[in-house]
Amino acid sequence: MSLNKKDKFLVKLEKEVIKLDKKFSKLLEKKKPVSLYEPCNYILSSGGKRLRPYLLLVAAKSVGGEFKNAYNAAMAVEILHNFTLVHDDIMDNADKRRGRTTLHVRNDLSTAILAGDTLFAVAYESLLKDCNENHKEVVSTFTDCIIKVCEGQSLDKEFEIRKDVNLSEYKTMIHDKTAALLEASCSIGAQIANGTKEEVKALSQFGKNLGLAFQIQDDLLDIMGNEEEFGKSVGIDLVDGKKTFLFLTALEKAKDDDLELLKKLVNNNGIKKNQIKKYKNLYIKLKIIEIAEKEIKNYTNKALNSLNILKDSEAKNTLIWLANFLIKRSK
Amino acid sequence: MSLNKKDKFLVKLEKEVIKLDKKFSKLLEKKKPVSLYEPCNYILSSGGKRLRPYLLLVAAKSVGGEFKNAYNAAMAVEILHNFTLVHDDIMDNADKRRGRTTLHVRNDLSTAILAGDTLFAVAYESLLKDCNENHKEVVSTFTDCIIKVCEGQSLDKEFEIRKDVNLSEYKTMIHDKTAALLEASCSIGAQIANGTKEEVKALSQFGKNLGLAFQIQDDLLDIMGNEEEFGKSVGIDLVDGKKTFLFLTALEKAKDDDLELLKKLVNNNGIKKNQIKKYKNLYIKLKIIEIAEKEIKNYTNKALNSLNILKDSEAKNTLIWLANFLIKRSK
Repeated sequence: MSLNKKDKFLVKLEKEVIKLDKKFSKLLEKKKPVSLYEPCNYILSSGGKRLRPYLLLVAAKSVGGEFKNAYNAAMAVEILHNFTLVHDDIMDNADKRRGRTTLHVRNDLSTAILAGDTLFAVAYESLLKDCNENHKEVVSTFTDCIIKVCEGQSLDKEFEIRKDVNLSEYKTMIHDKTAALLEASCSIGAQIANGTKEEVKALSQFGKNLGLAFQIQDDLLDIMGNEEEFGKSVGIDLVDGKKTFLFLTALEKAKDDDLELLKKLVNNNGIKKNQIKKYKNLYIKLKIIEIAEKEIKNYTNKALNSLNILKDSEAKNTLIWLANFLIKRSK
Repeated sequence: MSLNKKDKFLVKLEKEVIKLDKKFSKLLEKKKPVSLYEPCNYILSSGGKRLRPYLLLVAAKSVGGEFKNAYNAAMAVEILHNFTLVHDDIMDNADKRRGRTTLHVRNDLSTAILAGDTLFAVAYESLLKDCNENHKEVVSTFTDCIIKVCEGQSLDKEFEIRKDVNLSEYKTMIHDKTAALLEASCSIGAQIANGTKEEVKALSQFGKNLGLAFQIQDDLLDIMGNEEEFGKSVGIDLVDGKKTFLFLTALEKAKDDDLELLKKLVNNNGIKKNQIKKYKNLYIKLKIIEIAEKEIKNYTNKALNSLNILKDSEAKNTLIWLANFLIKRSK
């Protein structure tokens, strides 16, 4: 069977992921002290989608750059992402990540905090290797992004205890916590490849809107995902009492008994597993699934539209494919 | 009574500390979300010696720069220092810092981890404001320093459980954990003020050796300090079983029963409070106090000698005074 167009892009992505995985497994391999770098290595070699570095590489290429001049920057955004996962997993008391035991469970709290801090610094170290003339702008973009990510994580933790979160606040939170790093990845890729101001802005917009679509898709997968493909139980956000896009939209639309049911989740900080179906049916009744799908499509279209100013190229086509691919993902 | 020369320098230092304190209390004052920045503010406004920013400012001035062009960089090294304190206090299970409740006790673990991460990023943000032509070198120096500090902290944690730590490893640890940031502070001050390569190197050496002297002085104060002035109980390092310069030197020199006594501390991960005097007397018997004092003097002299290549100036005199002042400190 011959590969169709979509498959061709997927093959390229998968090839690049293997390449990146190799680079990550080697990055800190021989560094000392082992007590510090072995845990860092464990995290960097634990796989993942490698979406952020791939975005950076393709963004660089889409404005005339080459992958080979952007690998260190690409690794920087992924290392940064991994730092946030290590610290977030501590804050969330998470035992598992990407099918592996989280660092604070595998080793201990101190090791996980310190490995996270080290990855944070190593991310800068890696970024600096690919910075030339526009060095200051690149480091500023990266730094601003990290501050946003911290703000987003803080809001996310705040929302766990607050009972009055609204949809607009939620969007600010996911912009900061998730979209900011995808935005920075695309922006830095374009900057490193000496893209014009217009190109950098267009790619930033692409990354940001892709990030927003990506997060709402994540919220949707929690309830509509296929358990086997998704890799985690369906409805966990409801069980955990998370105020997701779906939940907050439902809260805005619901009345009377439906509203009471939703408020119960807030007041009890979550629901029991055997209630998931009840809430899912309420989402369906209130047409929340359609609203979420529309929102994802809106953000994806915004992302795609911002690419219009770029010259046509294989890299541009890859970005377009990637945006559509992410909407259709099942995990 | 008129002020003598030493007092004049002290007055200048104290004036600068007040100025820095004000800047720190304003830096994040109005930023949102409050749940993130209030804890950051709590840390930045908790005082401290402000040694690192002062060193950076005076280093800048000693090569012809002005304080006003280096305040943001000065704040960056102090913010970075505060980030390490927040995370170290979690790792050390410390309840108090600078007479105030530590952040993870006052708020919670998540807040403290995230405030530390935010301070880390804010440090870069502040540094970038004072970077111009030699921007890349400055950010590299800062980044390399942070990696060293993480390595040093990792070694420090490793030494807590290892029973075979030697004096040479200890020196590597304190170089990384403590001296590296004093080294970077002086180096960055000189770089920002466009010092020559020779000047930057000389000031780096000054900072590094000052840092080593500073840490051994800290070890010495634990056993010889005046409890009231020092602000913490004497002998805590012994109680905690810390492998300090004093302890490891004693371990190298001791024989027979003395050696057995020292090994007991290692095997029991510390001693009881009522045994402090016994160990202090052993240190005195083995002349460990004199050896430590000599080592502190050696490093201080090395620091001072590296200043020889600088032109004579009030700033240079301030650095000389500061080195001597730190040796004589009692807390």
